[in-house]
Amino acid sequence: MTDSNAKDSVGIVKPQSIHFDEALTLRSGKVIEAYDLMIECYGELNDDKSNAILICHALSSDHHAAGFHSTEGVVDKKPGWWDTCIGPGKPIDSNKFFIVSLNNLGGCAGSTGPTSTNPATNKAYGPDFPIVTVRDWVKSQARLADYLGIEQWAAVIGGSLGGMQVLRWAISYPERLRHAVVIAAAPKLSAQNIAFNEVARQSITSDPDFHQGHYYEHNTYPKKGLTLARMIGHITYLSDSSMRDKFGKDSLTEGNFGRDLSTGKLNFGFDVDFQVESYLQYKGESFSSNFDANTYLLITKTLDYFDPAVDYEGDLSKAFLQGKCKFLVVSFSSDWRFPPERSREIVDTLLKAKRQVSYLEIESDGGHDAFLLPVPRYLEGLSSYLSVVANEPVTTEKSSHAS
Amino acid sequence: MTDSNAKDSVGIVKPQSIHFDEALTLRSGKVIEAYDLMIECYGELNDDKSNAILICHALSSDHHAAGFHSTEGVVDKKPGWWDTCIGPGKPIDSNKFFIVSLNNLGGCAGSTGPTSTNPATNKAYGPDFPIVTVRDWVKSQARLADYLGIEQWAAVIGGSLGGMQVLRWAISYPERLRHAVVIAAAPKLSAQNIAFNEVARQSITSDPDFHQGHYYEHNTYPKKGLTLARMIGHITYLSDSSMRDKFGKDSLTEGNFGRDLSTGKLNFGFDVDFQVESYLQYKGESFSSNFDANTYLLITKTLDYFDPAVDYEGDLSKAFLQGKCKFLVVSFSSDWRFPPERSREIVDTLLKAKRQVSYLEIESDGGHDAFLLPVPRYLEGLSSYLSVVANEPVTTEKSSHAS
Repeated sequence: MTDSNAKDSVGIVKPQSIHFDEALTLRSGKVIEAYDLMIECYGELNDDKSNAILICHALSSDHHAAGFHSTEGVVDKKPGWWDTCIGPGKPIDSNKFFIVSLNNLGGCAGSTGPTSTNPATNKAYGPDFPIVTVRDWVKSQARLADYLGIEQWAAVIGGSLGGMQVLRWAISYPERLRHAVVIAAAPKLSAQNIAFNEVARQSITSDPDFHQGHYYEHNTYPKKGLTLARMIGHITYLSDSSMRDKFGKDSLTEGNFGRDLSTGKLNFGFDVDFQVESYLQYKGESFSSNFDANTYLLITKTLDYFDPAVDYEGDLSKAFLQGKCKFLVVSFSSDWRFPPERSREIVDTLLKAKRQVSYLEIESDGGHDAFLLPVPRYLEGLSSYLSVVANEPVTTEKSSHAS
Repeated sequence: MTDSNAKDSVGIVKPQSIHFDEALTLRSGKVIEAYDLMIECYGELNDDKSNAILICHALSSDHHAAGFHSTEGVVDKKPGWWDTCIGPGKPIDSNKFFIVSLNNLGGCAGSTGPTSTNPATNKAYGPDFPIVTVRDWVKSQARLADYLGIEQWAAVIGGSLGGMQVLRWAISYPERLRHAVVIAAAPKLSAQNIAFNEVARQSITSDPDFHQGHYYEHNTYPKKGLTLARMIGHITYLSDSSMRDKFGKDSLTEGNFGRDLSTGKLNFGFDVDFQVESYLQYKGESFSSNFDANTYLLITKTLDYFDPAVDYEGDLSKAFLQGKCKFLVVSFSSDWRFPPERSREIVDTLLKAKRQVSYLEIESDGGHDAFLLPVPRYLEGLSSYLSVVANEPVTTEKSSHAS
């Protein structure tokens, strides 16, 4: 693992909170009067402000994409969630780009969300925080760009739900990005994706500690429900084969499958028998103590609602006609949450709309989570694409826009 | 749908409960002193008792595999769970075979299980019902065969967990079956399978109405937990594409994806937005009011523990060396719970053990549930295989066995 002194680390980074006073009207019609966005930046903005990259996060991530918040191992044992990709000399190269990462609206890592105080009630928003869509997020990100003085991103990049924000950028703000990098995403959720999200939501809302979302006032949180939700999610992030490698490979030949961790024997009861059970429980529980359940609920709905074709009679190619940027689409062979077919749908639809698109299908056992892993061909492909982006002359005519 | 008067229906059937007085020592070492098995039979046993077929059920099924319990539509709107396959002229032909179906030990449809009275306490077993393995089930099924005077089954047939019982029959009682028909099964669970089972169990046990399994005494049951468990299971029984066909096909082109059932609009709240959500909730809730949660917990463990290679140094081919019957293995292309690869593992291992095996890989969008669906090539294949079984001379030397 890298540390903050490593040559390819952005080192110690300091998040900053930016306040926005202008009311934001959401797609639902509801209005957020004012809000904060928590962001981190890596690298330096060049003079003509043409080297900025926006990183869009996925369901459970935040602004802390790279580097460390502290040199103290205790506080900050792990670097940001995309440290494999972001840093000096890395694919998203902080020597070349000014990289901006944010916690989205509705999040629970410092941006305004369910845990924030609702000015109307002086209590936490809780379940009253309005449902935000990808479109709303991108609107708030465009305001962030205005604030930072960035008229046009060199690239907007994201994986999973992050990739959906990238698609929305290309459609809603075609003049404001030169490249869209859409990784392990889908043009909209499948019925199966929505089904898993619904089960996750039900597991949270049926936890008696959920208190209809007002658990803050009861000094508790739906630990079991959120743990379950995360366990379900986690299964869908991993491939069957990566789970087998992690928990079952030796045992497939030995015939014991990692049975009872100490004795290798079955316990013939309902305690943990298999490593995969304790692993998932551990992952779920540690997540539940660090993430807000209302945010989790909210963002699963953000996923379910994503459908950029909705304003174009369901024809995504018409939506993409808006796009002016170049696209890089990346998928992973063992991703069964958003499998390569879904990425190919995006690619084919972009081609139908006569947009310029490159497509990288990466062999990996890592499942959906592969987009966060150091898969060599993936990192090389991304690196190669973005080094061209870094060196290309900025000829795009910049439109004026209302901030 | 067939009705009880249809020519190809076994008509009205009457389950019977059979009492076994001989104590059954389980694989865990625990002993069940006496027990009942609920069974149903279709067709007539021939004079030399050579035409009997045993049907083994899957996780949530029971003895009621074919026909109707009543002509009253209200009581019995649907026929038995495998009525597509069992009946006069159907693949498992009740004109040719004497077909026996049972509710396994630990079940909740009449056989001794968690809801039965524990003679030691005079209260329901509840969570104290011992964990039963596939091996224990097959042992109890062999005693059932003894009771019925059936020395050798023409075939033992089952899908999913039922197929695992068939494999165990071939290994534990090689002389007692001529054909093993293993449908949509696996040689053991994958880490992903176990992970889904564990999430299902956690959702039940963390429901406050579970009361550590003693919910009967509280006049309640873990409705929400069991509903959730079933929802999770249900997602894994369907293929992504069958869900799309059911809930998303039109909407994929219309761009609304079955949104809000009445208005077609998103509700921007946490009520149901998509048909798949209400479908899963409905399925989960109706299941939870008809199935015992302790049985569900028990049988997911039965699945997790299945591993016939465990006594053979993890080498399944050594286990199969015990087998003397012929095998038919069937898999379905879109089954991602026990995908074709897992069936091919069984086939390849049988070949390694030089057993006689036929393999049928069926194209179907039906997912794991396809084994219950009227997929033409599947029914024809099964029909053709079993018509040969019905006509073959019974030449197998019968061993004597202790009953």
